[in-house]
Amino acid sequence: MAKSIFYHAGCPVCISAEHDIVNLIGSDNVELVHIGEDRSRIAEAEKAGVKSVPALLTPNGNVLHLNFGASMADVKG
Amino acid sequence: MAKSIFYHAGCPVCISAEHDIVNLIGSDNVELVHIGEDRSRIAEAEKAGVKSVPALLTPNGNVLHLNFGASMADVKG
Repeated sequence: MAKSIFYHAGCPVCISAEHDIVNLIGSDNVELVHIGEDRSRIAEAEKAGVKSVPALLTPNGNVLHLNFGASMADVKG
Repeated sequence: MAKSIFYHAGCPVCISAEHDIVNLIGSDNVELVHIGEDRSRIAEAEKAGVKSVPALLTPNGNVLHLNFGASMADVKG
């Protein structure tokens, strides 16, 4: 199975959701991307449809926005 | 592992998220509850911290609110 990608920005809401996602689907099945630190991936996340973080991009290309942590505008600001 | 519970109200956003969650964690690991049809479970969902649907209650008691579909007030209204 292709990996999911979990985009986050290091906020408390993000970290909590990250733990839940890793517990649910397993760390081998998800790539964790901190777009606050790895800003080169912000454009990729936005192109995939990420409007806020934390968000999970599934292998079939859907974006699941989880408990609202920060908007992409906040991350870029 | 204890099951997660996916609360939804049958809305298109809910159904899409349900498919994603089932694909990600497996249908054996999640109970699907349609609180629009099974209204006796609304109180349980609210007590668990569900503010909107679709939402996933994880085995450790955290609530992950997914792409906003409907508020609990809308579901009850």
